Amino acid sequence: MSKIRIGIVGYGNIGRGVEAAIRLNEDCELAGVFTRRDPATVKITTEGGKVYRISELAEHKDDIDVCIICGGSATDLPKQTPELVKMFHVIDSFDTHAKIPEHFANVDAAAKESGHVGIISVGWDPGMFSLNRLYGNAILPKGKDYTFWGRGVSQGHSDAIRRVAGVVDARQYTVPVESAVEAVRNGENPELTTRQKHTRECYVVAEEGADLARIEAEIKNMPNYFADYDTTVTFISQEELDKNHKGIPHGGFVIRSGETENGNKHIIEYRLKLDSNPEFTSSVLVAYARAAKRLAKEGVSGCKTVFDIAPAYLSPKSGEELRAQLL
Amino acid sequence: MSKIRIGIVGYGNIGRGVEAAIRLNEDCELAGVFTRRDPATVKITTEGGKVYRISELAEHKDDIDVCIICGGSATDLPKQTPELVKMFHVIDSFDTHAKIPEHFANVDAAAKESGHVGIISVGWDPGMFSLNRLYGNAILPKGKDYTFWGRGVSQGHSDAIRRVAGVVDARQYTVPVESAVEAVRNGENPELTTRQKHTRECYVVAEEGADLARIEAEIKNMPNYFADYDTTVTFISQEELDKNHKGIPHGGFVIRSGETENGNKHIIEYRLKLDSNPEFTSSVLVAYARAAKRLAKEGVSGCKTVFDIAPAYLSPKSGEELRAQLL
Repeated sequence: MSKIRIGIVGYGNIGRGVEAAIRLNEDCELAGVFTRRDPATVKITTEGGKVYRISELAEHKDDIDVCIICGGSATDLPKQTPELVKMFHVIDSFDTHAKIPEHFANVDAAAKESGHVGIISVGWDPGMFSLNRLYGNAILPKGKDYTFWGRGVSQGHSDAIRRVAGVVDARQYTVPVESAVEAVRNGENPELTTRQKHTRECYVVAEEGADLARIEAEIKNMPNYFADYDTTVTFISQEELDKNHKGIPHGGFVIRSGETENGNKHIIEYRLKLDSNPEFTSSVLVAYARAAKRLAKEGVSGCKTVFDIAPAYLSPKSGEELRAQLL
Repeated sequence: MSKIRIGIVGYGNIGRGVEAAIRLNEDCELAGVFTRRDPATVKITTEGGKVYRISELAEHKDDIDVCIICGGSATDLPKQTPELVKMFHVIDSFDTHAKIPEHFANVDAAAKESGHVGIISVGWDPGMFSLNRLYGNAILPKGKDYTFWGRGVSQGHSDAIRRVAGVVDARQYTVPVESAVEAVRNGENPELTTRQKHTRECYVVAEEGADLARIEAEIKNMPNYFADYDTTVTFISQEELDKNHKGIPHGGFVIRSGETENGNKHIIEYRLKLDSNPEFTSSVLVAYARAAKRLAKEGVSGCKTVFDIAPAYLSPKSGEELRAQLL
């Protein structure tokens, strides 16, 4: 069988992660990295791998089975995914939960018109966490859902801290409240406020002579980001930040706590503990690229999410192998 | 939309669990319980629910959307599922892992010939655990799989103890070794022997005056069942067994421990903690009955497993609702 030729569109953390994941999947190969930057300035990690301008994508139509679009959800993906699906089968990791229905409609219309498959919102949340919410709800209709995130770095919250005057650099960790997780695991079905579910730890490098008390207060009172949480602010040096906080770990839990007859309780827990959030997200994206190629081969078109894809489509193994080895 | 009319074939623990699960799923209703016993002797829990002889199934062909076959894997399902799929869309929980390929082939041939859908090996292992092995392998191709079972009651092992001379009753718990689970969670990727993964706890009621030392030795040395494990045998009274060991709890863990670049480790853990093994298994069966009806409506026929079913098919919610609420 011929390999799945993957085009990477955008070369940030996710793009680099997809490149790494392609190396781990023997049935995949890199068709090229497509960037808005000058290709001469972009060094990639694939021996012999090619870098092109994003504007050259159309010329590579016949060399690419699936494009994985690695842009940001705020401004890149809402434009790029509906545009590129006119030409390619595509995967994205669109993660603005509230705007998924709108994004889906845009991608679906363009995909159906052009006869392509577009799988959106692939990753772990949305993605694997969503799948576990769905399976949990379907199996235990009488129950409650809980999603906890962390311990992990939130890029959005780290960026928000960096915008505070006097801040040079920052790293924010989202941390689930252990006692809340335990109460859920014990089937207590607690009602939890935002504050009771997660705390926020901020490691901040301040300008020399900055008013630390003012910075700390500004962070802690920031609406939406920190005001609703118990937040700790720790000032550290740039050296310490670079040494101890350079990774991008993340993870979390999805728990369905349900009941059947006679008060019998059932807990379904899905947990991720990830050393690298972008590398794991990218690994999920590549598995769904495999599914996109298969769906396309069957003549399927339109927008899909992880909910619509039969699990077997993610695996390079045949149905026989899967049944014999993993069922 | 009309309700999913479910026929229950066989009325043991699983059959009763399916009946209970139907009550919790508003889009499902009981079409009837079909039993090998005299229907007059079978009391079911559904108000107005009907009990028929299994031989009357054919007469109810038009009243049933999906039959859930609730027999045993040893002798019932290998015969019943290929036979009944000639007439109905069916679900079973066939769980003899080594014989799944053979069972699949038999059901597939009969299902295709008659134009029905048969979803086999539905439950939690095989079933939800299998799904998590598949997802884990597809996402993290470089990694190791671990499955731990328990703490839970093994009916097979309890039955084996009951066959020992001098034993009146028994309950066997399979218990995962906590230190092994922790080592796996920490990404240590240990090589574990059978003995290092699980212990076996046996609660045994002996005949008055029986030779307890002989019974204990016979249990501990039983090949396949106990000889490869650290087994404890505790003699208790029938009263104590009835009081403290009457439930059928179970559960366990599926863990995929994988790596991406630069030694970055990722742990995916799926955990079940179930007060009632048969009621949870039955809840999974009913969710897949929903999928069977949908597949049948699309004209799909043949044998399927959980690997072949898109997650959305398990849910009563529409695609729009799922994307808005759970993605």
